[in-house]
Amino acid sequence: MVYRTLSTLAAAGLLAVAAGASANELQQRAAQQFNPIPQYPPVIDGNEMTEAKVTLGKMLFFEPRLSSSHLISCNTCHNVGMGGHDYLPTSIGHGWQKGPRNSPTVYNAVFNVAQFWDGRAADLAEQAKGPVQAGVEMSSTPQRVEDTLRSMPEYVKRFRQAFPGEDDPVSFDNMATAIEAYEATLITPDAPFDQFLRGDTDALNEQEQRGLSLFMNKGCVACHSGTNLGGQNYYPFGLVTRPGGEILPSGDKGRFAVTETASDEYVFRAAPLRNIALTAPYFHSGAVWRLEDAVAVMGTAQLGTELEEDEVTDITSFLHTLTGEMPSITYPELPPSTDDTPRPNPMTPSP
Amino acid sequence: MVYRTLSTLAAAGLLAVAAGASANELQQRAAQQFNPIPQYPPVIDGNEMTEAKVTLGKMLFFEPRLSSSHLISCNTCHNVGMGGHDYLPTSIGHGWQKGPRNSPTVYNAVFNVAQFWDGRAADLAEQAKGPVQAGVEMSSTPQRVEDTLRSMPEYVKRFRQAFPGEDDPVSFDNMATAIEAYEATLITPDAPFDQFLRGDTDALNEQEQRGLSLFMNKGCVACHSGTNLGGQNYYPFGLVTRPGGEILPSGDKGRFAVTETASDEYVFRAAPLRNIALTAPYFHSGAVWRLEDAVAVMGTAQLGTELEEDEVTDITSFLHTLTGEMPSITYPELPPSTDDTPRPNPMTPSP
Repeated sequence: MVYRTLSTLAAAGLLAVAAGASANELQQRAAQQFNPIPQYPPVIDGNEMTEAKVTLGKMLFFEPRLSSSHLISCNTCHNVGMGGHDYLPTSIGHGWQKGPRNSPTVYNAVFNVAQFWDGRAADLAEQAKGPVQAGVEMSSTPQRVEDTLRSMPEYVKRFRQAFPGEDDPVSFDNMATAIEAYEATLITPDAPFDQFLRGDTDALNEQEQRGLSLFMNKGCVACHSGTNLGGQNYYPFGLVTRPGGEILPSGDKGRFAVTETASDEYVFRAAPLRNIALTAPYFHSGAVWRLEDAVAVMGTAQLGTELEEDEVTDITSFLHTLTGEMPSITYPELPPSTDDTPRPNPMTPSP
Repeated sequence: MVYRTLSTLAAAGLLAVAAGASANELQQRAAQQFNPIPQYPPVIDGNEMTEAKVTLGKMLFFEPRLSSSHLISCNTCHNVGMGGHDYLPTSIGHGWQKGPRNSPTVYNAVFNVAQFWDGRAADLAEQAKGPVQAGVEMSSTPQRVEDTLRSMPEYVKRFRQAFPGEDDPVSFDNMATAIEAYEATLITPDAPFDQFLRGDTDALNEQEQRGLSLFMNKGCVACHSGTNLGGQNYYPFGLVTRPGGEILPSGDKGRFAVTETASDEYVFRAAPLRNIALTAPYFHSGAVWRLEDAVAVMGTAQLGTELEEDEVTDITSFLHTLTGEMPSITYPELPPSTDDTPRPNPMTPSP
């Protein structure tokens, strides 16, 4: 009895050593494909992140008066308390209109090569100008935004501080620049996977390691690598088999609208997978709620493989290790509207 | 020249002493009519404010999934970064419907005798149940709210911690109780007027003191006294002269809807005036944007007095001293929707 126990322990010890060796090997392979989220926000070319600018950008991110209705802020659809998005298939915008695509998370968006599902904005500053003007989102105009911000002395002061030396600092462009500076701080380091990448092989359990291994061996990594496990390149949705119309509605041809190139039909930016467990529903259509189902769809559509049920489960358990630490965000105090503030215009787009 | 300067200084000194004496007298009169906002949240009978309950209440306050669309949270219309309301005449709700009355600030609401413009909810817990169910606001049901909260293990755990020993802690009633506990922390102490009431007579300048004196002498204090300078009793809007239909729409008869008593036609709870400089537009109709105009309307409608322009200016400058220190609020992290979470129902009220 004693002998058997010792023998079992010894065997378990050998297994642990073997698993350790294999975990180390897996960690080394992974470190060649993926980068951990850095502990500090990245430097953005041409947009120095001063405290004044980041603080202003945060106010603007939470500012519903950037919308003509005074109801919708960036945070409405990119809710920092809800994984940086809204848990809706597609967002609700001005006049209760339904947006065309699923709202992507703002967290770690700074690490994407370009913004929007079709990459039509080169950076976060360009992105920020889109929803403010879109008729189905915030339905405002650069002029209205500038009039609104200039009407509040606190904003005028803060734009001066954030853009020192400029003659006319309160501008639509500077609004976008400040929002970009703030959004660059919205990163989520220290996910279990980051700890694993940095060498702590215990940060992923055996199932999660099996999932990571499958993720690399089955080919997911071809599109989903780098810091964000995606967000870097464009691929047809349905590389092998085009999904059904409920997942890939025929009316939305993706990047074709940007490039007008036939080969870009149904091409989208590979979704970044950071915090993917917090960003259901999935795909640009928001049609799939279960992460397992999304993994299975990716298997057939992109890899041409019917993944086994336990493979789907293992990959999904790995994807859960991509959930990082959310930054602590203090709600900003926004200045009161004044007599000069353009009045809320709830029902129609404003000139 | 030297003599004249000394004489002027001496006269100024005497004036300062006289002003000091009069400021002290004013402070003593005011201290009989008003109470400072306390530094700590008040005790609520029957709702012990444990940390677990307040933390849960804060999550629920920011939780858009209490609405059937998953878009609207308490914070949408009672925005803690915008003076505790939304700077809209009347709020926008489910399906982009227009609410019937101006959204009151959540800050210091715990000090009001009852909630809503007509006092139809006895306390903040009862209040919290209203907008969640109102078809024009969040358009949900107690059952849907409970199903939603039960679908997220994090909420189940937190309700257990907040309501220990209860068999079925995840309930619509407990949702309201937790929100009340959190809202009771939303108080804004240390306004200049509070410092004045506590004996620092320099906290109000001469104009502000003149305004306070007018506020008491002209009779405003009859309805606007106590901690919140209002929020304690019910009075007809148009006690002396009924305002025009653009300010007092004839379709809204105020407390009549609650009591069905003819004498309660056009009766409303006297508005609390704390942070009034941050809560434009004014009145239940939200029809008046300038605080000066609101003061003038009050003069004619409630006091039967055409206030002089400088009286209006002085009273308004006093009202600005009611702006307190906003609490520092960290955005809560809300749990992800699960497969069991009732799906967002953006277009129609849900069963």
